[in-house]
Amino acid sequence: MPDDCVFCRIVDRQAEASIVYEHDHVLAFLDHDPINAGHTLIIPKRHAAQLADLDATAAAAMFPAARSVAAALRRSGLRCDGVTLHLADGAPAGQEVFHVHLHVIPRWRNDGVRLRPPGRPAYRPPRSELDAIAHGLRAQIAESS
Amino acid sequence: MPDDCVFCRIVDRQAEASIVYEHDHVLAFLDHDPINAGHTLIIPKRHAAQLADLDATAAAAMFPAARSVAAALRRSGLRCDGVTLHLADGAPAGQEVFHVHLHVIPRWRNDGVRLRPPGRPAYRPPRSELDAIAHGLRAQIAESS
Repeated sequence: MPDDCVFCRIVDRQAEASIVYEHDHVLAFLDHDPINAGHTLIIPKRHAAQLADLDATAAAAMFPAARSVAAALRRSGLRCDGVTLHLADGAPAGQEVFHVHLHVIPRWRNDGVRLRPPGRPAYRPPRSELDAIAHGLRAQIAESS
Repeated sequence: MPDDCVFCRIVDRQAEASIVYEHDHVLAFLDHDPINAGHTLIIPKRHAAQLADLDATAAAAMFPAARSVAAALRRSGLRCDGVTLHLADGAPAGQEVFHVHLHVIPRWRNDGVRLRPPGRPAYRPPRSELDAIAHGLRAQIAESS
């Protein structure tokens, strides 16, 4: 555990957080700078800066934890007509704290959150281009497994 | 399997797709309307319209599959300085195809993708407010487990 990791300090209860859920391998707590009220972060308890650093057990526990929190948000009485899960891996993707975290965000229509960059023209690549990319990715996955 | 679900038809190879990865419980293929080239979708092979419909085995397989694809994208030669995982659960969150899908998107600085609505003032709720929300969510999770 790096001494300067605020999420590790939350795991060790050395930093303040509003804990939503705790399990063997993952912890969930409220984002202190929420996009919408109830915005929760799921983290692995063992430090992992990025996705590639995450062990398999923690990786398998992240999504089920997010699913439990999403269901709780929907029943909570908070405004929550839908839920967004979001994870930024690496600074170019918007990661700010270098301890893996999966956002679970209550949503409603026209709340201002959107994935697609506004104003960008749609681009539907031809199937041949998609197939070439998929072929390259399959080769990479085969190499590493 | 609903006859009109395009993702179920992809699983059954009745609809065209550029497949990236297949495992017992999940399938990954390229989004035909990519935000950035290499944009991949991870889906459970068994139909589940929303997160709440997903069985536990598929839920546990989604995130590890996304991690494998993210690693492959980073090594692929495609432009990929970071990766975003994103899932919209419910129409108010932006879900368009009602078969659970986790987006895996190659990212780079200033590519126009951003999670936080631009121009919205930051709101840092007091700890007492966060603690009250967390308390409510913990109660919901305890009730359902």
